[in-house]
Amino acid sequence: MTPAAIDLDEKLGQFDATWSPHTVAAFNGHDIAVVKADGEFVWHQHDDTDELFLVLDGELEMELRDRTVTLGPGELFVVPKGTEHRPCARKGQVKLLLMDPKDMPNTGDPATATVAVEI
Amino acid sequence: MTPAAIDLDEKLGQFDATWSPHTVAAFNGHDIAVVKADGEFVWHQHDDTDELFLVLDGELEMELRDRTVTLGPGELFVVPKGTEHRPCARKGQVKLLLMDPKDMPNTGDPATATVAVEI
Repeated sequence: MTPAAIDLDEKLGQFDATWSPHTVAAFNGHDIAVVKADGEFVWHQHDDTDELFLVLDGELEMELRDRTVTLGPGELFVVPKGTEHRPCARKGQVKLLLMDPKDMPNTGDPATATVAVEI
Repeated sequence: MTPAAIDLDEKLGQFDATWSPHTVAAFNGHDIAVVKADGEFVWHQHDDTDELFLVLDGELEMELRDRTVTLGPGELFVVPKGTEHRPCARKGQVKLLLMDPKDMPNTGDPATATVAVEI
């Protein structure tokens, strides 16, 4: 595939599902995805990888077991591998850029994960 | 280091130098940096790694040998490994998020690279 410019807003306009990563590009064995978040996700962790969140729109509360990190547009946060976390969007929908290793389960568990869609 | 929210605009306000990556976070062996671009960079390639560009402000022309990809705010582009490229900011300063393997030379050559600063 010839790499092209990826317009994140345009990609986010292609779907309505929340907590459903939509992969827009690949980078060094990782998937770059856009996600719409609304409400509370589940507590989980990724034992073998960091996870990158960049807020594009809205306010995300990243709950960790010992504190909550609040992120607005243009703010990013890297959840270190092995760290329990729960992303929450309690003030309306949040639009996110996410980066994870290719095909990683978004809940940390293949049995409960939402499979990423490529768009 | 306890990971914190990284405000990209706030980080970009801490320096004036152009084409000088300022590292703001680490992710799975990669550095996440912010950069101010102005004018033309040099043609180069990275033989062993992809390179991620996300435009935060301004218009970037990513010249490849066979075409030019124009990127505005909220648009990202992954330069595949081994691909010659020259990022250019010809219409004023461009603010970028950049992701590369830790300590990678930004020109593809340690002899000419600008060493990234951590902020």
